[in-house]
Amino acid sequence: MIRHSPKIAVLGGGTGLSTMLRGLKNHSENITAIVTVTDDGGGSGVLRRELNMPPPGDIRHCMQALANAEPVMQEMLNYRFHDGSLAGQSLGNLLLAALYDLSPSFDTAVARLSQVLAITGRVLPVTNENITLSARFSDGAEVQGETSITDYKLHSGAVIDRMTLVPDKPPALPTAIDAIGQADMIVLGPGSLYTSVIPNLLTAGIAEAVRRSRAVKVYVMNVMTQPGETEGFSGEDHIRALLSHGGEGLFRYVLANDRPIPADAAAVYGKGNAAPVTVDAAAVRALGAEPVFRPVASWADGLIRHDPAELAGALMDLFYEHAETRRA
Amino acid sequence: MIRHSPKIAVLGGGTGLSTMLRGLKNHSENITAIVTVTDDGGGSGVLRRELNMPPPGDIRHCMQALANAEPVMQEMLNYRFHDGSLAGQSLGNLLLAALYDLSPSFDTAVARLSQVLAITGRVLPVTNENITLSARFSDGAEVQGETSITDYKLHSGAVIDRMTLVPDKPPALPTAIDAIGQADMIVLGPGSLYTSVIPNLLTAGIAEAVRRSRAVKVYVMNVMTQPGETEGFSGEDHIRALLSHGGEGLFRYVLANDRPIPADAAAVYGKGNAAPVTVDAAAVRALGAEPVFRPVASWADGLIRHDPAELAGALMDLFYEHAETRRA
Repeated sequence: MIRHSPKIAVLGGGTGLSTMLRGLKNHSENITAIVTVTDDGGGSGVLRRELNMPPPGDIRHCMQALANAEPVMQEMLNYRFHDGSLAGQSLGNLLLAALYDLSPSFDTAVARLSQVLAITGRVLPVTNENITLSARFSDGAEVQGETSITDYKLHSGAVIDRMTLVPDKPPALPTAIDAIGQADMIVLGPGSLYTSVIPNLLTAGIAEAVRRSRAVKVYVMNVMTQPGETEGFSGEDHIRALLSHGGEGLFRYVLANDRPIPADAAAVYGKGNAAPVTVDAAAVRALGAEPVFRPVASWADGLIRHDPAELAGALMDLFYEHAETRRA
Repeated sequence: MIRHSPKIAVLGGGTGLSTMLRGLKNHSENITAIVTVTDDGGGSGVLRRELNMPPPGDIRHCMQALANAEPVMQEMLNYRFHDGSLAGQSLGNLLLAALYDLSPSFDTAVARLSQVLAITGRVLPVTNENITLSARFSDGAEVQGETSITDYKLHSGAVIDRMTLVPDKPPALPTAIDAIGQADMIVLGPGSLYTSVIPNLLTAGIAEAVRRSRAVKVYVMNVMTQPGETEGFSGEDHIRALLSHGGEGLFRYVLANDRPIPADAAAVYGKGNAAPVTVDAAAVRALGAEPVFRPVASWADGLIRHDPAELAGALMDLFYEHAETRRA
């Protein structure tokens, strides 16, 4: 039996995850977003350095996507200062910083703000540890910190061989592991491969829980390659990087976009060294996954993104089609 | 007939006003706090200078006093950062700053935050104008800005002759004038004489509305003199300053403390050049007001303050005793 509101665990970070959540919240009230905490740029980076707290930005974006509070609360959460010493800082980040100081742990602070915002589902930091990303590059360089890693990648031309966390294998939040264990569907991505999706798999407990799960497990392939991370990557390259960091059995399905990107939109991205990710069905199958192609990309205001409703619809179709098989 | 929840308009600012509101909210749901907006020190001063907004601090204290929101919202409103570039800044001030940017006027921003905080009654800035205090001293000096004025007073030994606002006589908020017009009781103070109570009387419309009103009108005398403002002042000196800035007919009753201040508490204050305000009944009557003595002062942690419950109780007694007379 499929329940009315399937339990969905999504893992990632950044814009990709929150975009997907905006769509998924219309299909289930049992969503758990497990969010990476390795960002060290922008307002989150300032708060990390000044207040010694985990980065609040990605968490906040997910809460915004799932919020049902009165409009004034949502406006405040989204507000960004534009003058004075606060310029660029987000008020939602500051709320989370205050609650972090007032709470015994980061996940408690997130839960308390979630309550104020009346969110659908749950948002969990993947770990309560204050962690830093570390990358070993093909030229032998070891670089620490998310911003420094993508900077080095942009300027060196080297590729990333291996990501780790500092401290190594920090304990994942037990409630995140539980949410994965209980999920009917697990979704990895979309989002930055090395700085949003893979970091979750480097905590102690997450990759194991995903592998163990008999849920419908999907990796949502990015629509475009990302400068500083995946220049020139095919879909198979994305999958190989995931498997090499998280092991076999992380996902059965790869949901890829098959709506052609208009030439003018692609041309703008091409100037920034980003291109549509090409996904070869046979190559994906050779890696042990099943490709599923759906027209889930959209573009507006010069940005190519997943469309929240179409992505969520495609995921739910996939789920309802395969959930019975899984349980048989 | 006295209604169940009398309409009470209180005018002032600073700690004194919010202390009184904590007590009054248990006696009436129809409280309007009309709050001065001339503070330029501390976190409010930073936001004034950096974001070109009215000072949020006094307003926030009053909202805190009247708030009924869930505890987590109140904790956030009260939270003060203690590290980094935000050290000393209040999160509640930042919420108000964001709403000010998102709203057409300051009073609208205050009303929207009041809604989030589910406050009993209303908090109104006395004016939407961005105003500065100006003082002419007995030595001829003209000093602008609240902090500079009290600094000058502390160091010069001169006394304040005349306060004005820059710009002069800014329009008071029409809803504040209405609230005064409809009030059953009007309370001036307690609070800093020259920087919290008098500034409200210098806007266009407030003093006239108070004088016109047939409400029970009370001035709550400060318990202690205040360095930088009222060193050496008697109760009559306070009253004379009020009348000289706001005209005759501002209040009929003067509520003064008659609980003796313990010698040890007074000694601590004495080192800072503050002393209990002495109130001579005959002198008050000679100025056209009726003195009412009640034991409303309290002390704890080295601070001498009005006790919220006792002050509110004394005010309500005064109100119920005299409201019938007024209407007869």
